[in-house]
Amino acid sequence: MLIDTATFSFEIVHQSKKSRARVGKIHTPHGIINTPNFVAVGTNGTLKSLDNFQVKSIGLELMFCNTYHLMLQPGSQVIKQAGGLHSFIQRDMPIITDSGGFQVFSLAYGSVASELKSSGTKKNAGSVLKINDEGVTFRSYRDGSLVVLTPESSVQAQKDMGADIIIPFDELPPYHIPLADLKHSLDRTHAWEERSLLTHTKNPQGQAMYGVIHGGVNKVLRKKSIDFLTKLPFDGFAIGGSMGKTKEEMLDILTFSMPLLPENKPTHLLGIADLPSLEKLMPLGIDTFDSSYPTKAARHGSIFTKAGPLKITKSLYATDFTPLEESCSCYSCTHYTKAYIHHLFKARELTSLTLASIHNLHFMVEKMKEYRIKILNGDL
Amino acid sequence: MLIDTATFSFEIVHQSKKSRARVGKIHTPHGIINTPNFVAVGTNGTLKSLDNFQVKSIGLELMFCNTYHLMLQPGSQVIKQAGGLHSFIQRDMPIITDSGGFQVFSLAYGSVASELKSSGTKKNAGSVLKINDEGVTFRSYRDGSLVVLTPESSVQAQKDMGADIIIPFDELPPYHIPLADLKHSLDRTHAWEERSLLTHTKNPQGQAMYGVIHGGVNKVLRKKSIDFLTKLPFDGFAIGGSMGKTKEEMLDILTFSMPLLPENKPTHLLGIADLPSLEKLMPLGIDTFDSSYPTKAARHGSIFTKAGPLKITKSLYATDFTPLEESCSCYSCTHYTKAYIHHLFKARELTSLTLASIHNLHFMVEKMKEYRIKILNGDL
Repeated sequence: MLIDTATFSFEIVHQSKKSRARVGKIHTPHGIINTPNFVAVGTNGTLKSLDNFQVKSIGLELMFCNTYHLMLQPGSQVIKQAGGLHSFIQRDMPIITDSGGFQVFSLAYGSVASELKSSGTKKNAGSVLKINDEGVTFRSYRDGSLVVLTPESSVQAQKDMGADIIIPFDELPPYHIPLADLKHSLDRTHAWEERSLLTHTKNPQGQAMYGVIHGGVNKVLRKKSIDFLTKLPFDGFAIGGSMGKTKEEMLDILTFSMPLLPENKPTHLLGIADLPSLEKLMPLGIDTFDSSYPTKAARHGSIFTKAGPLKITKSLYATDFTPLEESCSCYSCTHYTKAYIHHLFKARELTSLTLASIHNLHFMVEKMKEYRIKILNGDL
Repeated sequence: MLIDTATFSFEIVHQSKKSRARVGKIHTPHGIINTPNFVAVGTNGTLKSLDNFQVKSIGLELMFCNTYHLMLQPGSQVIKQAGGLHSFIQRDMPIITDSGGFQVFSLAYGSVASELKSSGTKKNAGSVLKINDEGVTFRSYRDGSLVVLTPESSVQAQKDMGADIIIPFDELPPYHIPLADLKHSLDRTHAWEERSLLTHTKNPQGQAMYGVIHGGVNKVLRKKSIDFLTKLPFDGFAIGGSMGKTKEEMLDILTFSMPLLPENKPTHLLGIADLPSLEKLMPLGIDTFDSSYPTKAARHGSIFTKAGPLKITKSLYATDFTPLEESCSCYSCTHYTKAYIHHLFKARELTSLTLASIHNLHFMVEKMKEYRIKILNGDL
């Protein structure tokens, strides 16, 4: 198979015979993303407590940055002036940006989703001034200025930033919503995604755009969304919107939706990559999963290990002079002990957050490698 | 000159003819400290926002850890169990620990010193329960338990930790103190230092002990302190106690004191290494200077450059795509731009603190190299 390295393409390396799971390669202008893979969340153009060369050395092949945050600080114009997001943040590997829709509608409606990507949004409730078919007007939490986010302005911001994969502007309806409103929201989202795609295709810049499937927990609407969006020339699909309150509801919606999506395009699951969910979702053939959970957990002292999470602040680790995980080859495990990292947490040293984050992210990278090997070996 | 690498020694490489400044090498069991040099402060066994391999790669040859903090968390016994401080924190280069006196008397008396090494001490005022000739009894800010710090227990803690250079237990009298009380305090400090030295020499463990010169801003008492302490077999001397409220007072006291100290032993200045002070103090022949100022300044966005400090949070840096300093070879400058680091500060990302700290510490390392070259070239 001939791959044009300047543009986006998806290659299926191996399709499991036991499930929809597959091993693939997403080719982008900034390199390959082996799938299935975990996508690290670097909201402001950095993973919290790490720098982007550490992120690279951990082997995180795709990084998720948030347009909402970056358009307010430093602004997409500054990033454009820097030569784009890759140049601004000094990352030479693939980046995906979202549309800002998730954050701006979290401001408007609040969010029951545990996968909230941005901290501190609740305090800004009321900053959304107008929502209509044109887009959303809100006040910047940084300087109080009015910002209008529309399909066109969101895509333009993502053009300025130049991520490898971009996302059309969508509406995020809340979980508790009357059916009529959910239908109306879906129609609006579809119109917005179409406008987003139109803006994108006028000036592709080598970027790929993933359509975002909505429809909440309603299967009829999920199917409608898939039918509508898969007719448009998106390069891949992301699954967004509310997927219910429990893991069972989520699994049910995704088990229903995934077989309806085209096999030859990559699928991304927005905001979910906790370990129990990954285990259940892996057979469905989802290719990439983003979540800030591994770094957030790390900052709370929850260390991922093969035997389950370990709370490093527990007193039993005060004199445990072994690494966080014996077999682990991460920077933190090859340099420091549980006792020292326990101490750094107890002494409230920032270094604790860095070392724990490195470990958890490395764990995710290894976990996804294992999944790929399992699929290749016919064990999944 | 034959150097026994297992023990401590001081070698004068070059004595300036123009001033008391000299270039030297302090040999320790964990390697050489080229002098004059800057000593990084890693209170809890880490420099804030960095890990100890980053500290090593920056080239910081001596690291200062605080016994007061480490004896409360994780406790000197834990560190001993880890095989000592070097092993616990994974540093294979020289370490100096203080006695805990500075912090515990800052709790008791408060402190006018701008060089306060520990943050958050003021809230613990009143936790000191008893001060007498035996030592100090205080309550741990961690678990409320009673801790008795005496010359013997301070040195024992420093034996457990095993730093290359240790400090005898001393009293830190406040700046505003009646002369009679200052005299009494000096006598107590001398008695305590003698007891500390006795405890040390019973079990040297290859460690060196620096006597701490006191006497506040009173030259008669400074001379008395030097006369008393230089008769004892200390391996070097540290200058402590109040040196006044202004840089002029400090310079006056140090200009008076330094020629009274033996030339063949290294001298350390406790808690002062800001750039204007260094410039003035360099001709006096002080060999090492510790300060948390470069890292504290970094965390406040003050970036050291040859042209003076630069406030990276200023809006003019939002679109400055050059390094913090053009000629700088530090990790931050060779990887990132002012605009990106400005953005990280604005977005309150922890990574900003790390990148700024690396730069300021690298700046200090280079600054001290320059001073050594100046002295070697006969320009200082």
